[in-house]
Amino acid sequence: MVTVLRGNIVHTPSFGKLETVPGGYLVLEDGVVKGIFPQLPEEYAGCPTEDWRDRLILPSFADLHLHAPQYPMLGMGMDLPLLDWLNAYTFKTEARFEDTDYARRVYRSLAEELIANGTTRVAMFSSRHTDATLILMEELERAGVTGYVGKVNMDRNSGVAQETTEESLRETLRWLEGCRFQHIKPILTPRFTPSCTNELMAELGRLAAERNLPVQSHLSENAGEIAWVKELHPDREQYWETYEKYGLWKPGTLMAHCVHSDERERAAMAKAGVWAVHCAASNVNICSGTAPVRRMLEEGVSVALGSDIAGGDQLAMSQVVVTSIRASKVKAMETGEPFLTVPEAFYLGTAAGSRYFGGEGFAPGYPLHAMVVDETAFPESARELTLAERFERAVYLMDKSSISAVYSEGRRVK
Amino acid sequence: MVTVLRGNIVHTPSFGKLETVPGGYLVLEDGVVKGIFPQLPEEYAGCPTEDWRDRLILPSFADLHLHAPQYPMLGMGMDLPLLDWLNAYTFKTEARFEDTDYARRVYRSLAEELIANGTTRVAMFSSRHTDATLILMEELERAGVTGYVGKVNMDRNSGVAQETTEESLRETLRWLEGCRFQHIKPILTPRFTPSCTNELMAELGRLAAERNLPVQSHLSENAGEIAWVKELHPDREQYWETYEKYGLWKPGTLMAHCVHSDERERAAMAKAGVWAVHCAASNVNICSGTAPVRRMLEEGVSVALGSDIAGGDQLAMSQVVVTSIRASKVKAMETGEPFLTVPEAFYLGTAAGSRYFGGEGFAPGYPLHAMVVDETAFPESARELTLAERFERAVYLMDKSSISAVYSEGRRVK
Repeated sequence: MVTVLRGNIVHTPSFGKLETVPGGYLVLEDGVVKGIFPQLPEEYAGCPTEDWRDRLILPSFADLHLHAPQYPMLGMGMDLPLLDWLNAYTFKTEARFEDTDYARRVYRSLAEELIANGTTRVAMFSSRHTDATLILMEELERAGVTGYVGKVNMDRNSGVAQETTEESLRETLRWLEGCRFQHIKPILTPRFTPSCTNELMAELGRLAAERNLPVQSHLSENAGEIAWVKELHPDREQYWETYEKYGLWKPGTLMAHCVHSDERERAAMAKAGVWAVHCAASNVNICSGTAPVRRMLEEGVSVALGSDIAGGDQLAMSQVVVTSIRASKVKAMETGEPFLTVPEAFYLGTAAGSRYFGGEGFAPGYPLHAMVVDETAFPESARELTLAERFERAVYLMDKSSISAVYSEGRRVK
Repeated sequence: MVTVLRGNIVHTPSFGKLETVPGGYLVLEDGVVKGIFPQLPEEYAGCPTEDWRDRLILPSFADLHLHAPQYPMLGMGMDLPLLDWLNAYTFKTEARFEDTDYARRVYRSLAEELIANGTTRVAMFSSRHTDATLILMEELERAGVTGYVGKVNMDRNSGVAQETTEESLRETLRWLEGCRFQHIKPILTPRFTPSCTNELMAELGRLAAERNLPVQSHLSENAGEIAWVKELHPDREQYWETYEKYGLWKPGTLMAHCVHSDERERAAMAKAGVWAVHCAASNVNICSGTAPVRRMLEEGVSVALGSDIAGGDQLAMSQVVVTSIRASKVKAMETGEPFLTVPEAFYLGTAAGSRYFGGEGFAPGYPLHAMVVDETAFPESARELTLAERFERAVYLMDKSSISAVYSEGRRVK
C-alpha cells in the first residue's frame, strides 16, 4: 500500500551533504521509502496523504550507545571520579534490576521517552539480568523502538553487579532463547575487557561466530582503563587486540568512546569494519577527553553517536548532536582540525546510525525512520528563513514538545 | 505581612557551599526573606503558607549577559566564523528592531520565556533603538523580570546597525528619560571598544559618573578582537585600559567573556570591582576558548554566568549552568585545575548574580528570588535520594515544564 507524507523535507543523504525539499513528498510503500519528490508524481495522485504543511520532516535519531539500567541515575554523581561514580551509583543502580517490577516501570518510561524525543534506533546495554533484559526488549518493541539490546556479561571487577562465569554463560543462553521480538534483536555485550575473564570472552566469541551475533563493548575511554587492560593482557599490544584475541573484533562490532584510540587502533577499526560510537557528553562529564571524530572519519572509521546514559546526562539525541558539535569545537580549538558542522553532526546522529542497521537516512528501499518538527514555539525570526536555517535552528532548539510525530520502521509511533 | 513557603529548600549561601533543609520553611515579610527554618517558629504559626510539599525550592537564576534583539536568531549561523556571523545574522537581526510592533512581539515572548525558565534577574543588551529598548524594559517589567537593560551604543564598525555619534548620545539621553520602571533599570552599554569612537566612550564615561549609572560591555573574547583593540588604542597596553581611559571601568561594571584576560587584566578587575560574566556556551559555539573561571575566582574576581543569547544557544540558565560545568571540565583536562562542581556552578548562575544586585541567594533582608521544581517527570530512582542528589539531578534535568512556580522580587510571577 502506497502512502505519502507531505512537508518540508530536510535530510543528510551522506556525511556533510544537506538536502532540502520545500513542500516535498515522501512516498512510501508498506512503510518503505520509494523516493522523495518536489512534486507528487502522477502515479501516486490519490494515495492517502499525511499533510504536515509547513512543518519539517527529518530523519529520526539513532542512539548507538546507552545503558538502560542507568536511566534512574540520570544527572547524578557527575562530580565524582569515575571509580567512585561506578561504585556509589552505577553498580548499585544496575543491581536493582533484579526486581522485575521495578524494571518494567523504569524501562516502560525509558522506551516512551526515547520515542517522545525522536530516537527510533538503539544499540543498548542492559544489566546482567536476563529477565529484566527481556522486559527491556519487550518495552522497546511495544513503544516502537528498533535495534539491538544486550544482556551485559561481567564476571570480574564489577562490585555488587558481578556474576560468575558459569552463570554469565548460562544466562546468556537463556536470554538468547527468550529473544523473540520483531524489531529488537540481541547483541552480545561483554561489558569491557576488565570486567570479563578470558574464559568468558572466549565463550562469547565462540557464540558470536556460531550464531552470527553482533557485538558491542567499550574501547579506550580513558588512560587508566587502557593501562589496566594492558596489565590484564600483557600479551597484547593494544586494547582492541583483547577483543580481537577472542573473536569479538569483527564487522559491525560497536565500540563506545574510542577517545584515546591512536592511529594504529583506528586503522584496526577501519580494516575490520568495527564502528566507533562517539559519546561527547559522557566523555566530557567523566573527564575522559574529546574523541578525534573527524580524524576517524577521514581514516575510514565508521562513526555514530551515543547518549551514553548515564555517563551522559542527555537522553534527547538532539542535545547529544549539539554537545557533539561543541565537543568538536573544543577539539578544533586544540588541534586546528575543522569542527563538525550542524549537517555533519546531524548525519552522525541519524543517517550514520541507520546505515549501521542498513539503509542511510531516507534512502529508498528502507523502512521510514522520521520525525516531524513543529517550530511554532521557536522565537519569531527577523526575516523569512531558508529551510537549511530552519533545520539548523531545529537541531539546536527542538525538544520533545516540538516533535509532532515519529515514524519508526515505517509505522507511526508518536 | 508575613507569608511562608514550605518545601525542600536547597540553596548555595556561598561559593561551594550547599545547604539543604528538608521540609523547611522560608519565612517572608512583604516578600523579603526573614529566614529559613527546619521547623516553623511559633511566632509565624497561622501565617498564610504555600505548601510545596515534596517539591524543591531553589534560588532562581540570574543571567548577566544576553542580547535581547538576538533572540530571533537563536540556534542559527553557528557554523559561521565570528565576522560572517555578525554580518549575516547579528547586525541585520538587530536592525529589525526599528519596527516597534516586531519588538513588542519578540520581547514579550522573550520576557515570558525567561520567567518560564526561572530567570528572574538579568543584565541585558538591547539594540541601538531607544523605542524598542523601552518596550523591552516594559515587557520585562510586566513579566516579572528584574535587573538592568542597556540601549546599545555603536557609532563605528557596526554595519547596518550603526548610528552616528551625535545620534547615539542624543538617543541615550532620550532613553534615560523614558526609563521609569520599578524593577528594570538602565545600564550604559557601549557595545565594545571597536564599535565606539573615543568621543562616544568619553561622553558615556561622563554620563556614568554624573548620573551614577552602571556599565556593561565585552572584554577579551577572542584573540583577533584583542589585537584590533590594541590597534585602535596604541596608547593603552591592554584591552581593559580602553574602558578605564574613559571612566567606564568601575565597581559593578560587567564585562562579558574575559576568556583571554591574563593575570594583569584579572588583577585590574579584582582591584576595581569589575565583574566577569562567563558565557560558556557562546565561548565554545564561536570557538573563542574556555575562560579560566576558577583562577578568576581564586584571584578575587567576581564571576556570574550569562547565556549570551544568541552567541549562546541556550536561554534556559539551568542548561547554561550545565554547559559551564562541562566547559570547566574541558579546562580541567587541559590545565589540571579542579572543575566546577554542581553546587559551585549553580552558585554562579544564581546567588552570584543576586549578589551583584545586593543580597546573595536566600540571604535574609532581601526580596525573594526563587523557583519551585517538580521532579515527577524525572526517572524513578533506584533508591531514596538525598536532597543534595535531588538538587544535582534537578540542575541537569530540569526544563521549563518542571518549574512549577517562580518568585521574583518577592512576588509570585509564574
